[in-house]
Amino acid sequence: MPVITQHLRLSTQGHGDILRITDQVTGLVASSGLAAGIVTLFTPSATSALTTIDFEPGALSDFRRLFDELAHPDAFYEHNARKGDGNGHSHVRAALLGPSLTVPFVDGKLTLGAWQQIIFVDFESRPRQRSLIAQIMGEL
Amino acid sequence: MPVITQHLRLSTQGHGDILRITDQVTGLVASSGLAAGIVTLFTPSATSALTTIDFEPGALSDFRRLFDELAHPDAFYEHNARKGDGNGHSHVRAALLGPSLTVPFVDGKLTLGAWQQIIFVDFESRPRQRSLIAQIMGEL
Amino acid sequence: MPVITQHLRLSTQGHGDILRITDQVTGLVASSGLAAGIVTLFTPSATSALTTIDFEPGALSDFRRLFDELAHPDAFYEHNARKGDGNGHSHVRAALLGPSLTVPFVDGKLTLGAWQQIIFVDFESRPRQRSLIAQIMGEL
Repeated sequence: MPVITQHLRLSTQGHGDILRITDQVTGLVASSGLAAGIVTLFTPSATSALTTIDFEPGALSDFRRLFDELAHPDAFYEHNARKGDGNGHSHVRAALLGPSLTVPFVDGKLTLGAWQQIIFVDFESRPRQRSLIAQIMGEL
Repeated sequence: MPVITQHLRLSTQGHGDILRITDQVTGLVASSGLAAGIVTLFTPSATSALTTIDFEPGALSDFRRLFDELAHPDAFYEHNARKGDGNGHSHVRAALLGPSLTVPFVDGKLTLGAWQQIIFVDFESRPRQRSLIAQIMGEL
Repeated sequence: MPVITQHLRLSTQGHGDILRITDQVTGLVASSGLAAGIVTLFTPSATSALTTIDFEPGALSDFRRLFDELAHPDAFYEHNARKGDGNGHSHVRAALLGPSLTVPFVDGKLTLGAWQQIIFVDFESRPRQRSLIAQIMGEL
């Protein structure tokens, strides 16, 4: 069974920027030539995370507001006190949402729902260049 | 290494309905004939999610209340304002909890703890018919 | 494609104790002899969970405080009322954060970021001996 590892390069605005990466992942799975298996998405970062959502401006705004309520940038963070930076909220948000997402594919296509999009959320407190891992494993 | 993709069909009541799916997943792994590997569970939906819990009425009630505190149905949601529907809370809850769960199996059995059950949580604001992906990958 | 299942044995203090397990997982992947693939980490427990974080005392303290805000030990839990024990908060926290984590590896090395560490969080209300599953799957 082949294992194909690719990278997705992303430019983000930070501050909870949400990027839809469904099309890139769909393309990688199609070009792998594999019929059925999983794609493991992983962000090698402690201040960003992955999930799926209905990629609609209202739902995205609601999702960002949830994280402002859970861990507001202006709250007190031990991380900021120790490190002198301002991304304490980024760390706890990313750890809560999680760095990995696994999506099955069948007949070369991701098994996503009609309104379900794969998103990368950059909780960092400044713009960043990001490189995600997309590892595809399956059968021909 | 074989890849076996199955579907789990579920009828839910929505509104945070929690369904235990351990027995169905255990059965699929047993009937796959594979000895060791992973089962990837995935909900192709933006308003439902997967995790594990002690399937005991108290813990289930507590878990539902946590989500009422995090994202109450009656709060304001941009999604509802734009779309005219009432499932804004369903979207943010599902994105937070996540659409996928990976469970290893060994000797044909899931490696779950004694009181740990796999659950599907339907955050949708009405009853739904759901079809989950259960993809099994491993060695004979 | 080989599937290698190992166990990580951990002694925890409970009460949100956070253990860094990156080195053990790195060692298991290296000794597997596999070049590329995934390691699936899974806690067979309903009161503990896995994620990644910048393993720095400030961020760890902030992460523990987030869970105190989400589900305080002294709040009312149906689970405690029914079971007569005191770990209702442990159950909802573990179900929210999730029991599994998947990390890709390439050239025999985990694809973690520079400050990103794999952690096991024991939300149980007392010290515990834990045994985690680390299942490695990939190509030579």
